[in-house]
Amino acid sequence: MTLTDDRVLDETITLADATGDALAHALDGPFHAVKHRWRIEVDADDVTRDPALGMAEARDWTLDKLTGLAHRHFAIAGFPAECGGDGTLPESVAHFEMMALGDLSLTIKSGVQHGLFGGAITNLGTAWHHETFLPDTISVALPGCFAMTERGHGSDVQSLETTITYVRETDEFEVNSPQASSEKIYIGNAARDGRMAAVFGQLWVAGECQGVHTILVPIRDADGESLPGVTLGDQGHKGGLLGVDNGTIAFDHVRVPRRMLLDRYGGVDDEGVYHSPIANPNARFFTMLGTLVRGRICVGAAAGSATRKALAIATTYATRRRQFRRPGLGAEIPLLDYLTHQRKLLPNLARAYAYGFAVNELALELGRVMEAEPRDAVRARALETRAAGMKALLTRWANDTVQTCREACGGAGYMTANQLTLLRGDVDVFATFEGDNTVLMELVAKALLLEYKNTWGDMDLWGTAQATARFVSDTIMERTAARPVIDRLVATARRRSGGDLLAARGWHVAMFEERERHTVESLAQRMRAAGRLPRAESAEAISQLGEHMLFAARAHTDRLVLEAFVAGIEQTRDAASRQMLEKLCDLYALATIEEGRAWFLEHQRMDPARSKAVTSAINALCGELRPHAAVLVEGLGVPETWLRSQMLA
Amino acid sequence: MTLTDDRVLDETITLADATGDALAHALDGPFHAVKHRWRIEVDADDVTRDPALGMAEARDWTLDKLTGLAHRHFAIAGFPAECGGDGTLPESVAHFEMMALGDLSLTIKSGVQHGLFGGAITNLGTAWHHETFLPDTISVALPGCFAMTERGHGSDVQSLETTITYVRETDEFEVNSPQASSEKIYIGNAARDGRMAAVFGQLWVAGECQGVHTILVPIRDADGESLPGVTLGDQGHKGGLLGVDNGTIAFDHVRVPRRMLLDRYGGVDDEGVYHSPIANPNARFFTMLGTLVRGRICVGAAAGSATRKALAIATTYATRRRQFRRPGLGAEIPLLDYLTHQRKLLPNLARAYAYGFAVNELALELGRVMEAEPRDAVRARALETRAAGMKALLTRWANDTVQTCREACGGAGYMTANQLTLLRGDVDVFATFEGDNTVLMELVAKALLLEYKNTWGDMDLWGTAQATARFVSDTIMERTAARPVIDRLVATARRRSGGDLLAARGWHVAMFEERERHTVESLAQRMRAAGRLPRAESAEAISQLGEHMLFAARAHTDRLVLEAFVAGIEQTRDAASRQMLEKLCDLYALATIEEGRAWFLEHQRMDPARSKAVTSAINALCGELRPHAAVLVEGLGVPETWLRSQMLA
Repeated sequence: MTLTDDRVLDETITLADATGDALAHALDGPFHAVKHRWRIEVDADDVTRDPALGMAEARDWTLDKLTGLAHRHFAIAGFPAECGGDGTLPESVAHFEMMALGDLSLTIKSGVQHGLFGGAITNLGTAWHHETFLPDTISVALPGCFAMTERGHGSDVQSLETTITYVRETDEFEVNSPQASSEKIYIGNAARDGRMAAVFGQLWVAGECQGVHTILVPIRDADGESLPGVTLGDQGHKGGLLGVDNGTIAFDHVRVPRRMLLDRYGGVDDEGVYHSPIANPNARFFTMLGTLVRGRICVGAAAGSATRKALAIATTYATRRRQFRRPGLGAEIPLLDYLTHQRKLLPNLARAYAYGFAVNELALELGRVMEAEPRDAVRARALETRAAGMKALLTRWANDTVQTCREACGGAGYMTANQLTLLRGDVDVFATFEGDNTVLMELVAKALLLEYKNTWGDMDLWGTAQATARFVSDTIMERTAARPVIDRLVATARRRSGGDLLAARGWHVAMFEERERHTVESLAQRMRAAGRLPRAESAEAISQLGEHMLFAARAHTDRLVLEAFVAGIEQTRDAASRQMLEKLCDLYALATIEEGRAWFLEHQRMDPARSKAVTSAINALCGELRPHAAVLVEGLGVPETWLRSQMLA
Repeated sequence: MTLTDDRVLDETITLADATGDALAHALDGPFHAVKHRWRIEVDADDVTRDPALGMAEARDWTLDKLTGLAHRHFAIAGFPAECGGDGTLPESVAHFEMMALGDLSLTIKSGVQHGLFGGAITNLGTAWHHETFLPDTISVALPGCFAMTERGHGSDVQSLETTITYVRETDEFEVNSPQASSEKIYIGNAARDGRMAAVFGQLWVAGECQGVHTILVPIRDADGESLPGVTLGDQGHKGGLLGVDNGTIAFDHVRVPRRMLLDRYGGVDDEGVYHSPIANPNARFFTMLGTLVRGRICVGAAAGSATRKALAIATTYATRRRQFRRPGLGAEIPLLDYLTHQRKLLPNLARAYAYGFAVNELALELGRVMEAEPRDAVRARALETRAAGMKALLTRWANDTVQTCREACGGAGYMTANQLTLLRGDVDVFATFEGDNTVLMELVAKALLLEYKNTWGDMDLWGTAQATARFVSDTIMERTAARPVIDRLVATARRRSGGDLLAARGWHVAMFEERERHTVESLAQRMRAAGRLPRAESAEAISQLGEHMLFAARAHTDRLVLEAFVAGIEQTRDAASRQMLEKLCDLYALATIEEGRAWFLEHQRMDPARSKAVTSAINALCGELRPHAAVLVEGLGVPETWLRSQMLA
């Protein structure tokens, strides 16, 4: 069945026929079964934290609830079944999203334990590590740390200072923090619960550095005391995520047996010789990091969930709270009847759907890439690029939107019992961890310039400038699920004109694509020009391209999101939901075009009249969707009892 | 001495000659003496709170520190000297700004006590109230509440439900909360410390409602127990400002003597008859509210201070923290050497200066308006309009910028000990209290449409539409301090062209002015057209103008800020500081034009080439200012010891 057929069939369907349930089903997509199980089996008490809990109580609560959920086989997907896992890798993202509708401390605690620590063992370790450590990791009997970031180096992982030195005499590794800047910081589970750490450091074997590798190091004994040579610190109070015990770890020549090295991509044999299936150290490093891509996907996905929850709270409140009177008429009217209030919330509701479909697609692609044998390097890099872009996009949106929701609820929004300030404080750091957003967007731009041919780490920006292709090929316009539909839509739109065009999906897609193509191509030209300058001038010229890189990355990621939305609609069988999603997609696309209209005007992709028409069209869509606010909120799939917002009681 | 003369004289001065001290002096302007006294006499311990304090400890700390400062004659300006005040009304804003560089709970506690409670007594009360209550209000011996907001009504003060009914038999007033929605909420000092409240309610005398008036009602006895008929609630944990004890107050037919009514603008005589010097109830209401304008000015000013502090922390960190290497070269480089990082911080530093000068001007105008005899109603409304616009602008900027600063410091920014998340949580609610920003900007637009001829409350939006002038006159382009200079600058710019134009202050001013004039005029036309429709359609059409109103208000306020910056530079005698301020003003003006470039392009005030040139000019200015980052930070005037950011230790 094609979109055109549907439109004919659905002639008698109206928006008013759409139900929240059917919309939620559509948005769940391939993960409906998993998400449905959460909704019917998990109570609000299992996943929502009292927002006024202090740090110590919040930490207790978080560990306790995570353990309980794991025992009930929630949040443990993506591990080998024989080690106690339950569910596929893509489903692990869906579990993470559901948990994030409850509480973000709980979510990040699971992210540290199952996603990062467990993920490192699964992806960087081999059979012995899996059998020995995964069962207790999954059940949370062995709380673990992902000890990557150091005081001196956050986003720049290749510059880590911690050393992992092979000691031939005793067949051990010695883990050491050579100076103050080598201390591991912001490490979840380090301050209180962690018993073992997956430590990232430079591997030295026989006097030669083999680059960053990962090794398991016990850090606390059964009584919770730190082990000899291990110095653990508590970083104490943070701007949010109080339930996660972030801390510091420093090693003073700590010895562990050779087999503790996670040696899937490089290890030391019985003769004390280093071997790796990947000869190039840079390629090896980025392949290792690449296997951890799930974490980045999950962080973006969870930020999306937190925003859905905030939107559910603020939109529901806006349908109930009345202030001021209609000009010239008597009764006080609900906040959501004001256009200014609609503009705060409804385009963001549309984005919530857009990003939801995009996350579903990303999760499915994660499964495909990680299961592919042999590994498809280009496809893997495309996934990593998309994950980086989506993480930056979603977490930026989450920060802005949760704040908008807080303000849209006035003074009530500021009361902790109404939940929004908890969400705000918790989601804040999502812009930073799993890669600072600015750094991630630069990585996306680099990948586009290199057409996924090289790994990010193969070269710095100067190298990138040298390697940038003369013309950017169609590789970056990679075929997404919706491609055949997209091509048809674009072709159809070419035959339309005027106001009609603003409602044509093909026009939206064409606008997104042109912006991406133009910004990436002009970036490529400027990058090549900068690369041809003398070395010092070249560095300065490349530095001037920073904002252009961010913009190109954003344009690329926006286009992927729109295509995912189109694909999501294609998959939706319920006709009324489908009509509603089409309206939401219109609003998402037009709001994105409006937000970026300066670029479209500067590059003469729109004239001033059309730019103003886009704004009018958005206002009209807000009016059309306003009566369906409750259905749109229900469609976000947040269990109503989990909102726990006092003002909605 | 004129600007042109200076430029000739200063030929040999370079930016590098500028010192932080001289810049701070320039930015302090007329308030240098007051601010200097704070900087040399007040220790960090007096004004900075441990950000990890729980709610109960934070409340203790806040009351204690405020009392201590008041006893040392800080933060008690703007009261009659004979009652214990020390300093002028404009100086009260400067005191508030300095306190906000320390801690926002402390600041808001003072705002509640001295600004709102004390301000109500000063401005709405008469001699007996002043003599009886001001001394203990100033010394904080009598902690008081400003009981305006109700559960049912926040921004819409005219719809308050609390009643103040005159009881002829006993010559008393009876204060009552008729229903659940009449309960006073979010009231500072209500949860714990308040002994008395200035209660806003509808005054009923002899069966007739005289509109909102204010009455003093004791709420707690000397032991802190609530008085009979008064129900006090604690709103507990909030998203920030933990040191302020916000609570609820409900009255069950509470009687107080007649003289407790703050009767400057309306009271009951010995015969039980209501009298007021202002016959029109609406005019009376808005005159009363107008006398409280200081609160709105102070909230904007304090938000500006909080942002200065955040910028001082993040910019200093960015000069020290090194990450990644220069493309093709070896050493790790400071974050602030990246253009992407400069773009996050430097335009905001420029805005900090712009808003600082604008706040100075606003504070001085506050003094002129409040002291004018007889009261100049148009000038008063212009001040209220400007105060509303600046409050909305500054608090929006504060929220966005403190968050930007948090993210610019990465994981370190999220650690409570580094201060940024405390600022973030505290400043959040500034967007809401003293008037929701959206509501305030609509008030600004209304005032512009009515050319300050009517008070805001005289009419709803439908009435506004009827009264909107055919053409907007020059009234809204009211003469600011800098007007003669501005006219000259605009004339000069007309003779320039091309890239040269981008550095011409006159061009900046012309762009700001044209945007304001066009948006206000087109709003007036649309508003008049909407007003001519049948009543129900009219309401809908007016509602559609909400976004346009916000935009016009913003354009107006931006123009006032730019003119204040120009005036501030005019007042600056130190040549090197002056040059630095000119650069900052360029950056402020261009960043504002860039941010609004979609409008300028849509309205053909810029062509695409110039729009792109603006962006390039901003990038170049960032490069020019980068080496002076430390001086620019020092110039913000935040005492270094008050930063208390662990990562800068």
